[in-house]
Amino acid sequence: MRCLERAAELFGGKTGIVCGDQRFTYGDMASRVASLASALGRNGVVPGDRVAYLSYNTHKLLEGYYGAPQAHAIVMPLNVRLTPVELTDIVRHAEPKFLFFEAEFLPVAEHLRTSLPGLRIVNLDTEYDDFLVQGDPIPPDIRAYDEDAIAELFYTSGSTGTPKGVMLSHRTVYLHAVSSIAAMTLDPNGVELHTIPLFHANGWGRPQTATMMGMTQVMVRRFDAAGVCRLIQDERATSMSIVPTMANALLAFDGRDAFDLSSLTQVFIGGAAANPSMIENLEKAFQCEILAGYGLTETSPVATSARRKSTVVYASDEDRWQRQSVAGWPIFGADVRVVDVSGNPVPRDVSTVGEVVVRGDVVMDGYYRDPEATAAVMSGGWLHTGDMAVWDEENYIHIVDRKKDIIISGGENISSIEVEKAICTHASVAEAAVVSAPDDRWGEIPVAFVVIKAGINLNEADLRAYLAQRLAKFKVPHRYFIRTEPLPKGGTGKVLKRELREPFWKGLEKRVQG
Amino acid sequence: MRCLERAAELFGGKTGIVCGDQRFTYGDMASRVASLASALGRNGVVPGDRVAYLSYNTHKLLEGYYGAPQAHAIVMPLNVRLTPVELTDIVRHAEPKFLFFEAEFLPVAEHLRTSLPGLRIVNLDTEYDDFLVQGDPIPPDIRAYDEDAIAELFYTSGSTGTPKGVMLSHRTVYLHAVSSIAAMTLDPNGVELHTIPLFHANGWGRPQTATMMGMTQVMVRRFDAAGVCRLIQDERATSMSIVPTMANALLAFDGRDAFDLSSLTQVFIGGAAANPSMIENLEKAFQCEILAGYGLTETSPVATSARRKSTVVYASDEDRWQRQSVAGWPIFGADVRVVDVSGNPVPRDVSTVGEVVVRGDVVMDGYYRDPEATAAVMSGGWLHTGDMAVWDEENYIHIVDRKKDIIISGGENISSIEVEKAICTHASVAEAAVVSAPDDRWGEIPVAFVVIKAGINLNEADLRAYLAQRLAKFKVPHRYFIRTEPLPKGGTGKVLKRELREPFWKGLEKRVQG
Repeated sequence: MRCLERAAELFGGKTGIVCGDQRFTYGDMASRVASLASALGRNGVVPGDRVAYLSYNTHKLLEGYYGAPQAHAIVMPLNVRLTPVELTDIVRHAEPKFLFFEAEFLPVAEHLRTSLPGLRIVNLDTEYDDFLVQGDPIPPDIRAYDEDAIAELFYTSGSTGTPKGVMLSHRTVYLHAVSSIAAMTLDPNGVELHTIPLFHANGWGRPQTATMMGMTQVMVRRFDAAGVCRLIQDERATSMSIVPTMANALLAFDGRDAFDLSSLTQVFIGGAAANPSMIENLEKAFQCEILAGYGLTETSPVATSARRKSTVVYASDEDRWQRQSVAGWPIFGADVRVVDVSGNPVPRDVSTVGEVVVRGDVVMDGYYRDPEATAAVMSGGWLHTGDMAVWDEENYIHIVDRKKDIIISGGENISSIEVEKAICTHASVAEAAVVSAPDDRWGEIPVAFVVIKAGINLNEADLRAYLAQRLAKFKVPHRYFIRTEPLPKGGTGKVLKRELREPFWKGLEKRVQG
Repeated sequence: MRCLERAAELFGGKTGIVCGDQRFTYGDMASRVASLASALGRNGVVPGDRVAYLSYNTHKLLEGYYGAPQAHAIVMPLNVRLTPVELTDIVRHAEPKFLFFEAEFLPVAEHLRTSLPGLRIVNLDTEYDDFLVQGDPIPPDIRAYDEDAIAELFYTSGSTGTPKGVMLSHRTVYLHAVSSIAAMTLDPNGVELHTIPLFHANGWGRPQTATMMGMTQVMVRRFDAAGVCRLIQDERATSMSIVPTMANALLAFDGRDAFDLSSLTQVFIGGAAANPSMIENLEKAFQCEILAGYGLTETSPVATSARRKSTVVYASDEDRWQRQSVAGWPIFGADVRVVDVSGNPVPRDVSTVGEVVVRGDVVMDGYYRDPEATAAVMSGGWLHTGDMAVWDEENYIHIVDRKKDIIISGGENISSIEVEKAICTHASVAEAAVVSAPDDRWGEIPVAFVVIKAGINLNEADLRAYLAQRLAKFKVPHRYFIRTEPLPKGGTGKVLKRELREPFWKGLEKRVQG
């Protein structure tokens, strides 16, 4: 809210939001947000109420980011890709008072209303304007708000199990914004393309950072490579954040050269692991700085970024791409460590695997209505991320795996990502996922799902022999599922390993090692 | 303290501090600071105690910035340029438990000890090392500290009257640092020259920003143009902050071209009003970005800076120099307005004069042991700065005068600075100050102190005629004191107008207009 107040005060006449054919100044936006907040209050929203959204990236969703908290309520953007069953679970848990939805989600919205008596639903395409006029467009004095009140609630995509609602306070969201700007040297004179769905992980903090800096924000309703290239060209966009799936789509898009993309200066990759060749290829395609980063919804989300550290000298472009492709080192306000089961930092030797823990200004207040789940991840102020990593002398974090994806075979820890990378070096392989299966002798064994490139055959014995030359014996998968259809993926492009793993573990419990 | 903890964690092995021939890593610094804090505790310092310094810029003073707060005490760097009488007043008011001093201040230190029974004095040159070894070099867990506790105490130089102690909390100092970095795009890979005395206005926040970013910090014990140029060259300094007096000295230094100053990328000017030709000349001399800014000890100190705003397009270099020479627009976390006596914003027309007020994260907690003085400047969360300004549509603040320096003559407000600028355009004038004197007819009248250039004569009647062509009649000074000796100045190069004004007002009270 401070972010919007600042934008309205200092950039009131500037075109702040571009959404399709519509353009809004920050003054417009502040008035619309005030109307929304006021209308919510007049429609019975009281402090602490939840206000949910089912929407792709539009100026209306961005308005919700500010309007709900301004009504002392909690904004709760839902992942539109979830199934009605998953959404029902979330809505029953969070019990929002309002649900704003885009017209195409009407059936889901109506279904949710039947699941939660009392839920009021507002169609953003047909009913929103009428709703807004019920409110007064006068921004309140935000100093009357409690900085520790919860402002945002994000249900995590649940690659690890039941969705949990991440609570972010005003203070946390604000400090994440100013710390991100400071650490990542974001350009206040730039134009930000909102490429990442804003319903993911606090929109990577961009709804706040871009507003706070008074940047022009261009809404990308849904990602497609041609549309993004066109918007970069037409709006002279300078920065955007993408996930690896988007990176691959942009790299594969053969119409790219027809667009003038020279305005871009920074591209941030996150959401799933990047790799050096992705950085290299993006850098060559966009002729600008490409930086990976790392975080979780629970860390607002940015905890680390792969920007250059003053003590690091790049030995070569390859070295630089490698460094820029890892999780990187902490932004301001975040302590990040890689620790063993006792919570002690593991050696910074790039080989000892530990769990990433985060403490500080960017960490959530806890899971909504779930003290047990909160206690399971928070300990002594540290958030246990469930991500396994190694780190180096420069405190750069290299994520190696999700804790649940680590395979413990015969007492050895196997990083599924390491095995997948080895499989992907094979010329016939398009993508691969490695998961654990239970085994009487070894405890667990690695099992590989391998997607082969179109029109190519791959023999299991050949692949096994290929891997045996590249991996320690205990890391070579015991079983192979060679296929042509893509692997199941979540919203940010992460492979849903849980789905692949579950059939093997029916009725059993996978032991989780810390 | 978070700043140092971060530096030690992420830049422990980096040479962080360069001080004469000595070099310290951030790991060294963290250990030394921990020793200092621990030794203070063992020597009876308890939470809330004051620890004073009388020192030019050295690594030991920088250690005090962190060591005293780490002992739950309050660091209180004193202005070494004050007279023993002034220092005695401050010390009697603040009652520090310790005073650390450089050897040359031994007589003053001993004098202060006699004024404050129980004050322990430690000679930084001969006793400091022995003092440090009394402590343990183990940094504490800073999460045990109260973020709202006072960490720093600065007695303002008192151009407006009795010195007052500005209290800055851990939270304020930290937020000022991260907000400054974010707003001013400070370079984390750079080398900072500590040119400004650290005993002034929280060292302009640089003890925190530079540490937090893990920059290399080069201590300039005392400013001299040749020494600064040598350090820029030898240490490849990238940034420094200066006051106009230093700017003039650097510009006048004819040995400058003998040094390689190409590493410099940013120079910040503050402390007193800059002007466009100073920006232009510095830019040409140093071939880098030159930015003015504005703040007070009471605002930690940076409240605004003259960096480019995305809505501003420079029409020409002249226009850019002009913009870069004014106070500028707010950094993050600071609300800054120009208001009338009722507290309402004056029109943004670059001509209506009002008082600058500041609210937000960078504002002090109040004056130490002086609730009356605090109440006199704080109202509804707003700090009344006593600085008079106009502002423009872009919210750029242009300081026109101190409130007490505004001359109210026949009901007209006269900006003393405007009149001074007019006088300084005369070819024979080196510098000028205009103050108010009481007058039976006009209430107040402007009186000019004019310093003429060496070897030049200036006739009062000629000057009066010259000004009559350039200024409205009511603005033309009634009386002139033409002299060759420089005007009296304070530590940051501000002319001490109070001193010039006082003789006229003996026994009378100047009416202050808001």
